Amino acid sequence: MDGTLRALAERFTGLLGADAVITDPVRLRTYECDGLTAHRAVPGLVVLPGTAEQIAEIVRACAAAGVPYVARGSGTGLSGGALPRTDGVLIVTSRMRRILEIDIPNQRAVVEPGVINLDVTRAVRPHGYYFAPDPSSQQICSVGGNVAENSGGAHCLKYGFTAHHVLACEVVTPDGEIVTLRAGDPGYDLLGAFVGAEGTLGIATKITVRLTRLPETVRTLLAAFDTIEAGGAAVSAIIAAGVVPAAIEMMDALSIEAAEAAVGCGYPPGAGAVLIVELDGPAAEVEHQFAEVERLCREAGAFEIRIAADDAERALIWKGRKSAFAAVGRISPAYIVQDGVIPRTALPEVLARIDELSAETGVRVANVFHAGDGNLHPLVLFDDAVPGAAERAEEVSGAILDLCIEHGGSITGEHGVGVDKARYMPRMFTETDLDTMQMVRCGFDPAGLCNPGKVFPTPRLCGEVPGVRKGVHPLVAQGKAEQF
Amino acid sequence: MDGTLRALAERFTGLLGADAVITDPVRLRTYECDGLTAHRAVPGLVVLPGTAEQIAEIVRACAAAGVPYVARGSGTGLSGGALPRTDGVLIVTSRMRRILEIDIPNQRAVVEPGVINLDVTRAVRPHGYYFAPDPSSQQICSVGGNVAENSGGAHCLKYGFTAHHVLACEVVTPDGEIVTLRAGDPGYDLLGAFVGAEGTLGIATKITVRLTRLPETVRTLLAAFDTIEAGGAAVSAIIAAGVVPAAIEMMDALSIEAAEAAVGCGYPPGAGAVLIVELDGPAAEVEHQFAEVERLCREAGAFEIRIAADDAERALIWKGRKSAFAAVGRISPAYIVQDGVIPRTALPEVLARIDELSAETGVRVANVFHAGDGNLHPLVLFDDAVPGAAERAEEVSGAILDLCIEHGGSITGEHGVGVDKARYMPRMFTETDLDTMQMVRCGFDPAGLCNPGKVFPTPRLCGEVPGVRKGVHPLVAQGKAEQF
Repeated sequence: MDGTLRALAERFTGLLGADAVITDPVRLRTYECDGLTAHRAVPGLVVLPGTAEQIAEIVRACAAAGVPYVARGSGTGLSGGALPRTDGVLIVTSRMRRILEIDIPNQRAVVEPGVINLDVTRAVRPHGYYFAPDPSSQQICSVGGNVAENSGGAHCLKYGFTAHHVLACEVVTPDGEIVTLRAGDPGYDLLGAFVGAEGTLGIATKITVRLTRLPETVRTLLAAFDTIEAGGAAVSAIIAAGVVPAAIEMMDALSIEAAEAAVGCGYPPGAGAVLIVELDGPAAEVEHQFAEVERLCREAGAFEIRIAADDAERALIWKGRKSAFAAVGRISPAYIVQDGVIPRTALPEVLARIDELSAETGVRVANVFHAGDGNLHPLVLFDDAVPGAAERAEEVSGAILDLCIEHGGSITGEHGVGVDKARYMPRMFTETDLDTMQMVRCGFDPAGLCNPGKVFPTPRLCGEVPGVRKGVHPLVAQGKAEQF
Repeated sequence: MDGTLRALAERFTGLLGADAVITDPVRLRTYECDGLTAHRAVPGLVVLPGTAEQIAEIVRACAAAGVPYVARGSGTGLSGGALPRTDGVLIVTSRMRRILEIDIPNQRAVVEPGVINLDVTRAVRPHGYYFAPDPSSQQICSVGGNVAENSGGAHCLKYGFTAHHVLACEVVTPDGEIVTLRAGDPGYDLLGAFVGAEGTLGIATKITVRLTRLPETVRTLLAAFDTIEAGGAAVSAIIAAGVVPAAIEMMDALSIEAAEAAVGCGYPPGAGAVLIVELDGPAAEVEHQFAEVERLCREAGAFEIRIAADDAERALIWKGRKSAFAAVGRISPAYIVQDGVIPRTALPEVLARIDELSAETGVRVANVFHAGDGNLHPLVLFDDAVPGAAERAEEVSGAILDLCIEHGGSITGEHGVGVDKARYMPRMFTETDLDTMQMVRCGFDPAGLCNPGKVFPTPRLCGEVPGVRKGVHPLVAQGKAEQF
């Protein structure tokens, strides 16, 4: 540990107490990565603050010392957004787990950033409400992490992403001030910019979330098709009919095989694709629409449809889907989880191209996706014992992203850019686009100490940014950009 | 006209043709204000471009000449957001009225900024869709203006504001580049920052809007109550029951009186408040919930409930509400339309305080509001022939905004800040908040030529802004801030 970090560790020990400051190399290693283990870095120092004021103090101390810092919730992210800095401080929010307020009349709750996603729902369910964003990791991921990554989940087709459920954030800005950003306030939508900024604009210390009324009824069906195309046609028909299901998930033959091997979910044998469609809402509406969905699936060629009769059957249908990622471990020693987005109507074409890619390269790809909103999670399989296999898988994975971009989609649907996809940003955005984003970042964090190295492809000082403003920005025109 | 503007006029005439450049003082006066006539300024020059490339050229020419510019759609805004600059160029988008694409499978349309809000719905209605944002001015306001002001309307309780229905914008940035901002793209949500920025971050030249499926059924009721409190209790009960009406509008006795005098809408005599509740959606759901709403209104003390039997009766119920603003002209020579927001649960308390304010000052206030989302439109009445009356009305109007802020609300719900409410911003935001917004603005528009003087309370050069970043921003520390 260098002298600067050692001095910070002493200062933070005075501030937080010895049990909230980690300097022991073995314990530091626990924090070396988030859910994306391909990227690892042992943090220089870990702190576990308990209040916003402590975080503000930590941030000010880092700013004064010129030391970078990264905030981390539960560390379940899949893009390396919370990857630590070896030369910096990791600010872990797991001690900030209080639900501060539950305001049922105004349908909101105020929570600390370390509160576990599902705990919000547990706390408000007795009142008939829940917190809608449902990433697969919701049993362990934190609301603060959800805010940073603008997390989605299977039900965001109907209910939207985290951004749609955050009404306000108390934020420690990179200069150590505590401000509150609120949805719908006049002026620029800074809350909108903050949510999903992957921790690069400050650290949320208090989050006001919208609570959603528990639906009167939930109905779930599983439809089996011969081909992905037929399943895709059913998705299009359902959406075109004006039905907005809570979720429409699709799995292809390879991912069904994997799920079957892992959890024996008993999906119809021989299916080229299965579709899970879930409707929720008032019973009268759901019954009406459910019949419609069933009819549309049959018309699109479903050879078997199973309707969950109760919660246990519903859980069984979801079991296959929810275990799909992990299940792929049964049929492949290693794999990459990709996360791309395409317009829903391009599904058949893109899936056909992924098939071709797979055939050309010999790299197997299992497809699991949120079909309703075109969010693909291709699982690119490889054997890490075979030299060069990881590289080939990475190439196929990258080629899939290129396909998404070509079709007017995006390089990430819900996992974020983090450190992992920063290099893909220039494929999607022009230099002007990226410079404009950098200027926003520099507005919040001119010193570039707040989660640096994430989102943007090349680390740059703020003074190097405004190429976009050439000819307008007098300082750049004068060649003085390096001064700020 | 000064020499700089004259030179620009010549250049623009070459670019656009003579019929698209207005320099005649009498014709320029036509553009001296938007829907808020209290603020007036005759533009230095008006141009009517037809393409994004022309707008980019105009913006580049203005930037090179250091001349400010303002974009304007139909000029129906109620906060002076499109107030021209006497020393600048007004860029009017009314010739850009093409609907470029209607993509029903993906439920979206691409329109030019001058397209009239209701024309989008007219174009897609045959396909079973509509454009949901419905400001009262929707027969004449432009989609570009809706984007700038993030316009709402009576139905945004259920359907959200314009921001929720914009999927992408092609934008001419203040340095004259054409970029596309898209919802859900990785990196910062620049589209979110752009929509509602009141034209200060650039000019939208192409807008991709989300289309909403026409509801199977619409049902509307009018409930009359003795008091505003009873009506407010009904609103709370409806929302608490988990019903999300398409609209819940409330009018108090004075605004009912005005509407009656103007359009003879035949609301129940003697009502202290009427509530209009509209439900839409699948027939099965609507019937179920409508019965619930009727019951809750009766329980809250409604002494009369009228249910529209058909479209004609529905139109009659809405007629009183929609004419309310103009109708106030029947009972008062002049009035201010205020636009504030409070938490829904604070309605009874805030309305009681407005009553007291009115009694203390002798200034009459008629209340019309989007009750479901706590968006108040108090109409502050005065006689402009009486010396000092306008000032007293303005004071009461400002005091109502203070009430909104005190109760954790906002100084604007849907009309925007514009030039009118810029001075109220410091009552709602700290200096740090405002400086952070300014840094975002400076990211897009360092020269400060794009709709200057709006939103922010004091016009400042970008170099004067980063007080908030003192001690971090090396340039400021070196006293060189004035150089950029």
